[in-house]
Amino acid sequence: MKNLKKIILLGILICSAAQLFAQKASWIWYPGDLDIYMSNVMQNRRTERGSFFPVFWKMDSHYVLVDFHKEFTLTAPEEVKLYVEGTYNVKIDGQAVTGFPKSIQIPAGKHKLSLKVYNQSHVPAIFVQGKTVVSDDSWLTTFEDKEWIDASGKTSDKSGTTFVSAGSWDLTDPKVLPSQFKLPVLPMYAVNKEKIGNQDGILDFGKETFGFIKLHGLKGTGKVNIYYGESKEEALSTEKCETLDFLTVDIAKQQDSILPLSKAFRYVHFETDPTVKLDSVSMLYEYAPVAERGSFKSSDPALNKIYDVAKYTFHLNTREFFIDGIKRDRWVWSGDAYQSYLMNYYSFFDASTVKRTLLAQRGKDPVTAHINTIMDYSFYWFLGIYDYYKYTGDKKFVQDIYPRMQSLMAYIDGRKNKNGLLEWMPGDWIFIDWADKLSKDGEVSFEQLLYARSLETMALCAKLANDAEGFSKYDEQAKALKSKIFDLYWNQNKNALVHSRINNQPTENITRYANMFGIFFDYFTPEQKLAVKKNVLLNDQIAKITTPYMRFYELEALCAMGEQAYVLKEMKNYWGGMLKLGATSFWEEYNPDKQGTEHLAMYGRPFGKSLCHAWGASPIYLLGKYYLGVSPSSPGYETYTIQPDLGGLDWMEGKIPTANGDIAVYVNKQEIKVNSAVGTGKLVLKSRSKPVANGAEIKEISKGLYEVTIEKGRDYRVKYSG
Amino acid sequence: MKNLKKIILLGILICSAAQLFAQKASWIWYPGDLDIYMSNVMQNRRTERGSFFPVFWKMDSHYVLVDFHKEFTLTAPEEVKLYVEGTYNVKIDGQAVTGFPKSIQIPAGKHKLSLKVYNQSHVPAIFVQGKTVVSDDSWLTTFEDKEWIDASGKTSDKSGTTFVSAGSWDLTDPKVLPSQFKLPVLPMYAVNKEKIGNQDGILDFGKETFGFIKLHGLKGTGKVNIYYGESKEEALSTEKCETLDFLTVDIAKQQDSILPLSKAFRYVHFETDPTVKLDSVSMLYEYAPVAERGSFKSSDPALNKIYDVAKYTFHLNTREFFIDGIKRDRWVWSGDAYQSYLMNYYSFFDASTVKRTLLAQRGKDPVTAHINTIMDYSFYWFLGIYDYYKYTGDKKFVQDIYPRMQSLMAYIDGRKNKNGLLEWMPGDWIFIDWADKLSKDGEVSFEQLLYARSLETMALCAKLANDAEGFSKYDEQAKALKSKIFDLYWNQNKNALVHSRINNQPTENITRYANMFGIFFDYFTPEQKLAVKKNVLLNDQIAKITTPYMRFYELEALCAMGEQAYVLKEMKNYWGGMLKLGATSFWEEYNPDKQGTEHLAMYGRPFGKSLCHAWGASPIYLLGKYYLGVSPSSPGYETYTIQPDLGGLDWMEGKIPTANGDIAVYVNKQEIKVNSAVGTGKLVLKSRSKPVANGAEIKEISKGLYEVTIEKGRDYRVKYSG
Repeated sequence: MKNLKKIILLGILICSAAQLFAQKASWIWYPGDLDIYMSNVMQNRRTERGSFFPVFWKMDSHYVLVDFHKEFTLTAPEEVKLYVEGTYNVKIDGQAVTGFPKSIQIPAGKHKLSLKVYNQSHVPAIFVQGKTVVSDDSWLTTFEDKEWIDASGKTSDKSGTTFVSAGSWDLTDPKVLPSQFKLPVLPMYAVNKEKIGNQDGILDFGKETFGFIKLHGLKGTGKVNIYYGESKEEALSTEKCETLDFLTVDIAKQQDSILPLSKAFRYVHFETDPTVKLDSVSMLYEYAPVAERGSFKSSDPALNKIYDVAKYTFHLNTREFFIDGIKRDRWVWSGDAYQSYLMNYYSFFDASTVKRTLLAQRGKDPVTAHINTIMDYSFYWFLGIYDYYKYTGDKKFVQDIYPRMQSLMAYIDGRKNKNGLLEWMPGDWIFIDWADKLSKDGEVSFEQLLYARSLETMALCAKLANDAEGFSKYDEQAKALKSKIFDLYWNQNKNALVHSRINNQPTENITRYANMFGIFFDYFTPEQKLAVKKNVLLNDQIAKITTPYMRFYELEALCAMGEQAYVLKEMKNYWGGMLKLGATSFWEEYNPDKQGTEHLAMYGRPFGKSLCHAWGASPIYLLGKYYLGVSPSSPGYETYTIQPDLGGLDWMEGKIPTANGDIAVYVNKQEIKVNSAVGTGKLVLKSRSKPVANGAEIKEISKGLYEVTIEKGRDYRVKYSG
Repeated sequence: MKNLKKIILLGILICSAAQLFAQKASWIWYPGDLDIYMSNVMQNRRTERGSFFPVFWKMDSHYVLVDFHKEFTLTAPEEVKLYVEGTYNVKIDGQAVTGFPKSIQIPAGKHKLSLKVYNQSHVPAIFVQGKTVVSDDSWLTTFEDKEWIDASGKTSDKSGTTFVSAGSWDLTDPKVLPSQFKLPVLPMYAVNKEKIGNQDGILDFGKETFGFIKLHGLKGTGKVNIYYGESKEEALSTEKCETLDFLTVDIAKQQDSILPLSKAFRYVHFETDPTVKLDSVSMLYEYAPVAERGSFKSSDPALNKIYDVAKYTFHLNTREFFIDGIKRDRWVWSGDAYQSYLMNYYSFFDASTVKRTLLAQRGKDPVTAHINTIMDYSFYWFLGIYDYYKYTGDKKFVQDIYPRMQSLMAYIDGRKNKNGLLEWMPGDWIFIDWADKLSKDGEVSFEQLLYARSLETMALCAKLANDAEGFSKYDEQAKALKSKIFDLYWNQNKNALVHSRINNQPTENITRYANMFGIFFDYFTPEQKLAVKKNVLLNDQIAKITTPYMRFYELEALCAMGEQAYVLKEMKNYWGGMLKLGATSFWEEYNPDKQGTEHLAMYGRPFGKSLCHAWGASPIYLLGKYYLGVSPSSPGYETYTIQPDLGGLDWMEGKIPTANGDIAVYVNKQEIKVNSAVGTGKLVLKSRSKPVANGAEIKEISKGLYEVTIEKGRDYRVKYSG
């Protein structure tokens, strides 16, 4: 703890010292471009049994020619260093400087510094470091400056040029080009090694992990075959394991080699030719350097284990972007990422990775398909922005991305049918969930519900982007669609939303999807909520959900209805069930009814299932939001709610990260302790008698329900009878 | 001539031999992508006094992930070699082959071969060489295959996937990757060397040229400064020459160095530090390997010289794409390129460069500005496609590019004002011509005229692309706009189109632009044409045209009105005027009233003017089309017209190239000789008495006007009295 303080102090000293001498510069580029570029790099690392396995949707690219500029006033002349990724020119007040200067002198006074960069292969990027003139997201950029010169030599007006704020990831080392961006690595070693034959062996790294295999003391001429397994069975199955490397070695002098492509595995199986010598094998664990800020601990060790494995699962899938699974697909799927955003708000609170992922998914105009080709996934993208704003309060990002929201929504708008609803069109994938016999025919209620929420998001963001006309348009559309949903899909007899309409007629089919989203979207009346809970969520006759993906929302809906005790049991059964089967990370799918290696199969392949899937980590989110009970009530936690629910636990404690510090909560059946670094909170608690707090007012808001206002920076200790 | 025949014979032998063994393969890519990529490379070679000088419009980029496939039936198994630029996978009948195979064996039977290629830096491209399975433009490609896999392992339907024919430039060497495409070079030497000081010298290459400077026997440590000049004055002006290279030399052992960036020059001026030794300097002339198929020769040596210099000027500006000028801008400007297309049809008949240039200019969606930001230049792009089809008959290209025509036209359509006309909007450059005090205000008639012609082009191409609905729409729009133009701009008193409307009122201003285009667009009645000729074209009160750019159209209009004799005189004065001033290529602008070095200045810079500008080469076109008189009357010269006009010359002869061979014409005042390799021609001639022909029927179509039908492959000799 003392060390930590020292580091913090040192950090502050360094910051202040740096500010005395120079502003902080970072690499900048056209917004979204490095996000798109790096997501291409990352997503194209997928292989399947040695074959390159790329995505099937459009991959966009960066603008190859970008103009950057900044206007400023200098009180004193200043030397400014220039670092550029690309071919470039430099202009001061519109006058070109000869050649490719690495440093320029800018006189005192009002000036405009411009750099124009061409780079076909990589993202055009600049790093400008003067004492006060530095590159950051206050620079303006465009991909078409329209700066022509007429016959007299006069420069054009640029009234038609759209300048936007530069993109940045806060890359502050001028020597490392943005295209060289890499996650850090740590050496790791196997915990067990088993010899199979003379030349074969299998290594166990003790748990699911991810990184680059390192071959120590490699020498000779011949083959080395490496088979990776998330399970031992997979690593041993040379014919069916999902990932492998076939190496041809021809090395005279012993040396260490690191494989170029990272892999996911717990077990690594080697076959080496007798002519090849190999001393040992280790790995470089590659990880996102995020801070593990969120925490949860309780009186139930089994639940704590679930939380820890969920966090590890989520950390493994938090990479340059939020991906679905580390073995497979290693892609940025919008539906998966949406859950990652939510889990992130209760663990790392890493806003950068959220922004990067949102920008990467959206890509560039024109929109030629839904995000990932999936209709629901376009909507999750909008919802991700809604939540991002709610949790971070970052209005600038919303304003910056708003034009890309408009064009995606325009695309969707162009695909409405004559009823104003969305149904399958050529090129669409209606995913919803991996579930047997799930109908995708006709107008599926779930899609309309997500559409309505997306329109609400558009209205919200239109307001933030000062687009009054857009606000009215989207707000009207959202309201009309919401009311249409209840007109068309609400079945009065079944007291639930039906799954779909086919040939303009509602079906009788009830599924969980639209109904559970209706609860936490708060689209239902209190009566409808109770009815849906009983008739759908807690009704075994309704087709069960088998993926952690939709379990996420199902359990969220139940928590939102106060069923924490029930959900705790479900969590322990479902996630605990995987742990009992030896899981060291949570899976893409889990069906307790399956046996043995059946658990490893999916997509018709014996090891097709991903055993480390981000969407398997939802306990992080549920425990933070619905047990510790913390959530923002206005953007960026300016105001927020703490409504703890032990759900049967004796005690729990944890931290919820926010953009401006943590909210720490401890709860047992007699006492609640809170300390918050941000905003103004509202602790809501049930108590049989009036609670007692140290120097805080306690308000009774209804019979047995109390409220305590939490100011930042103070320790609260509330005694109650839970 | 004998050598040529040998080469041709050899060529045929090689072709036949190759066909015995294997089909011809070529590199393929997503259509337009190498065109866009390579035009970026080319256009970014511009420098101004050592500074990188890129374009100011949006540069697009290639798709980074592209799927290629072909279905075929093999009668016997076949080995197929694979060459790929990028990271790739290979599938046979949907089954991935492990790794990155360089060769695969395909069994007999019906198969589908697919390759999917990722390349961020360069254009994803493949070269497939089997005996019968070869890559060519019959392969289908897409940038979003939408080939997802459901939970059962089943592949999606791809009903929403748009597949298009692959792009190709007929690059047939599998060892040379498309990104390595380069024009050929030839060593050339200065014709004169002049020493200036101890270490300075100036070389004269005898005429305007283009290429890479080669420094022979370079050694030492110090600076070498190189100043380029299209004129000697420019090369000597170290302070004001437009292009230069500042080299820092540090070479211990004498060696030859070739500068990386090509330059345009006649004169090259060196300054070397005393510590640097340099034996000699030569150049590598870089050129487009096009065949000089068109020719023209006449009884007037001065005119022949004009033709030759025009052809050289045009050849210099024919590069990977048709550019404006070799010193400056070295860019693909649509208005300039449009004239190059026309000149090309009467010289090289190189369809590839036309297609490449059209694709490069158009780039990708979304359209965010006019082509080159210039309103008129968007329209020339449509007109270029109209002419391309007329001259080549290449329907496939029109069909392939039609979607990109639609999106550009949709952009233009979205910019109409309340009168349905186009006027300046933010971001637009209304260019028309370099001319003093030329008004761009309000609704300029010239722009509406080009718009109408573009709509006619859309209607024509809609028909070719089997878009019946599009045809009706564009046809109606074109007709409505054409009639509106005459309603709004035709001044009954002045008997001409006025220049513009301002505040909904036609101005009184008459300029040449709309009026001359109205003639060769055939928009005027015969009476209107005569009136316009008298009141505008031959009226010295109307502001004169000083650029060869608009002289092109002015003289074309006069030729179309039968004023060949007048135009011949103009040509000899104007282009002959430049030759008298020592021009070795034709200029960007020429004003006979200027003196001495005034001719070199433009854009407020003493050497700003380009002395080798494609638009200066129009005599190629005029002499071919309006003197030899050859032009297609149906697409691809299936039928065509020869209407020779000596314009005062004693005799002339020449060849007009077509896609399927040449049309040779000889004309003097008594005799016309024709031999054509293509189509069915109609020789139209005036004669005081009925002409006599060898075995051909002569038809009198009106008093003194005769017609002879020309069948291909026969020699015609028509005696007449001209």
